[in-house]
Amino acid sequence: MNLFERAMVQLERLEVDGWLIPCSEGSDVHSKFMLDLEVHIRHYIYVDRGGKHKVFTCTMEKPMVEKKLSAMGVDAQVEAYSGYDDIISMLKPLITKPKIALNFGENVLTREGTGFAEYLPVGEFRALQKIAPNTQFVSAAPIIYDLRTIKTPEDIQDLRETVKINLEILEDLPNWVKVGMTENEVKRELEIKYLRNGGIGFPAIVANNANAADPHHNGSDKKIEPGVLLIDSGMKPRRMCSDITWTYWVGGEPSEAFLNAYQALQYAKDKSYEVVKAGLPMNLPAIKCREALAEKGYDHEKLYIHSLGHSLGFNVHDVGGGMRAKMPDTILQQENMIITNEPGLYWVNEWGVRLEDDLVIKKDGMENLSYTPKDPLVI
Amino acid sequence: MNLFERAMVQLERLEVDGWLIPCSEGSDVHSKFMLDLEVHIRHYIYVDRGGKHKVFTCTMEKPMVEKKLSAMGVDAQVEAYSGYDDIISMLKPLITKPKIALNFGENVLTREGTGFAEYLPVGEFRALQKIAPNTQFVSAAPIIYDLRTIKTPEDIQDLRETVKINLEILEDLPNWVKVGMTENEVKRELEIKYLRNGGIGFPAIVANNANAADPHHNGSDKKIEPGVLLIDSGMKPRRMCSDITWTYWVGGEPSEAFLNAYQALQYAKDKSYEVVKAGLPMNLPAIKCREALAEKGYDHEKLYIHSLGHSLGFNVHDVGGGMRAKMPDTILQQENMIITNEPGLYWVNEWGVRLEDDLVIKKDGMENLSYTPKDPLVI
Repeated sequence: MNLFERAMVQLERLEVDGWLIPCSEGSDVHSKFMLDLEVHIRHYIYVDRGGKHKVFTCTMEKPMVEKKLSAMGVDAQVEAYSGYDDIISMLKPLITKPKIALNFGENVLTREGTGFAEYLPVGEFRALQKIAPNTQFVSAAPIIYDLRTIKTPEDIQDLRETVKINLEILEDLPNWVKVGMTENEVKRELEIKYLRNGGIGFPAIVANNANAADPHHNGSDKKIEPGVLLIDSGMKPRRMCSDITWTYWVGGEPSEAFLNAYQALQYAKDKSYEVVKAGLPMNLPAIKCREALAEKGYDHEKLYIHSLGHSLGFNVHDVGGGMRAKMPDTILQQENMIITNEPGLYWVNEWGVRLEDDLVIKKDGMENLSYTPKDPLVI
Repeated sequence: MNLFERAMVQLERLEVDGWLIPCSEGSDVHSKFMLDLEVHIRHYIYVDRGGKHKVFTCTMEKPMVEKKLSAMGVDAQVEAYSGYDDIISMLKPLITKPKIALNFGENVLTREGTGFAEYLPVGEFRALQKIAPNTQFVSAAPIIYDLRTIKTPEDIQDLRETVKINLEILEDLPNWVKVGMTENEVKRELEIKYLRNGGIGFPAIVANNANAADPHHNGSDKKIEPGVLLIDSGMKPRRMCSDITWTYWVGGEPSEAFLNAYQALQYAKDKSYEVVKAGLPMNLPAIKCREALAEKGYDHEKLYIHSLGHSLGFNVHDVGGGMRAKMPDTILQQENMIITNEPGLYWVNEWGVRLEDDLVIKKDGMENLSYTPKDPLVI
């Protein structure tokens, strides 16, 4: 089944007439997700419950969209508009129906919220309400959740291949990173390697010593000195994004404090892996990880200030939520979700260490697509 | 004045109490615009009319934001939240005021609309309305328009330097592009050069022959054959994005049809430049360009299916709108806007040619930051 067919199954289940995705200049990632294409100018993708799919584009982007849909085997009619009046009259019959799904979230400032579906901006929503005043617009969250949370065998194979190349590049890193290069120089050279091998997943985090205590440090022109070098990066040559963190040691023998923290994280990761399995609570790996760090004498409440991981896929932070110790027991791990496992320990203004893998949740456990070196690599 | 101070001037003028920018995973470009930083997890930037600015972030991103604001000389209090309840109680006093500006557009499906301000998603808006039911939420469009449409001398110098390097890379292109490379290979090598020199502005368009007739062609694995090679690309090493299109000829002598179209576009561009000047109507350069193409015998209605250009800046398609022949006379060119000038001619399924420059509109005319070769470069 292609993505349009999979969405139709959800529309049928939810008894919704269609799913409309307005997009302009990348405002909704689901345009690229559904069309596998960068369409820039304002366009509308309509997935119809009955299969009469439509895409409205500007004149100059129409041929490109038609070609792509045809190559993907999607039977959708592409129509060009030439102005706002056109758009309105083309949308009117499409969305003048009992129920139309749009990409907005509900209760977004609560734990049960569907913030992951939040793409439709307020002004566009008001315009659609004006075009079809009697339509009930419902959240497309269940459709998005279904299409993106559980990965297909093709998605998993895509990421498996990406991670393999990503790991080779990380293994090679000690061969070219030198003391005295800046964080930004390392970031740039690493991203060039990713680009050369297919594509950058997200801006790489390259953080030396005190900067490594900032989990999301944006690179700087700080020159790399002996000590800790944390690198959190990923590739996206096709549809799936990798996300791997390795922490290296720069210059001679690693300090005892670093080695101890590194080994404690490895131990805690192994403990958490024992409870990665479809059907177990989503919070359990995070709880086990924190217990193991406490056992090794680390004040994790103070030193480990983020969640264990997150769903990974088309976006680096993908639909499917985080892996947090404090989430309700009722949220369960699901087969063929891909998640990161990335505990860290951070001493503010001093240094930090984080080790991140990409895991597939399986019926009987997990597949680790990546690995982190047993002993830290030395640069 | 820093950006927070400039926004305060607008809040004063509009008699609005504050400007709130909610952002999560890059959902609103104005987070990066105001903070000059990639903040990933949900955060809120509040610019206060009276100068009591606040930023709410998750615990782990707080130090990074504090460091950056301090480096920029912005006096804003950064507070960490630890859950949704925290966010709600922190936002409540901030937005329980008569008038708060939010990033949404109005009348977005009309020519007078402010779609450029559309970032706030529907669910977030509903949550804010629930937190502060008596607040009048107004569109931040006038603030955004002021901060982004007219460029500062620093912005212009930023782009001047970027364009200089960008042009050198385009001039060098015939030295490494070969017949038989794929479009995607050329795209990748070009992007690597951009990355090495500071940053990629947007995914490069590399289009050979029939693909060049698709103005927004997404690269393919088509091998480059003799004929037309259209390359539309840009760099963004700092805050300003360049956007330049050169059309090359591959293999021997350019065809007469290509040379004629190329020269007609140069002629039409020159004609349009004569009416780029602050105070003249925004549509005039586009009208003059089309008149010149008609004069040279080209059916521009059929062969030239897009606008003359667009505002350029922090985003490649920046706030300030397009340069279209069919826009009202009342919209005027403004001093220190940066615009592209990019007419093209396209023969569907055959080939296309486009020549794009980046111009600064000045009081007495224009400054062309770039150029296109008088005669097409041959590969």
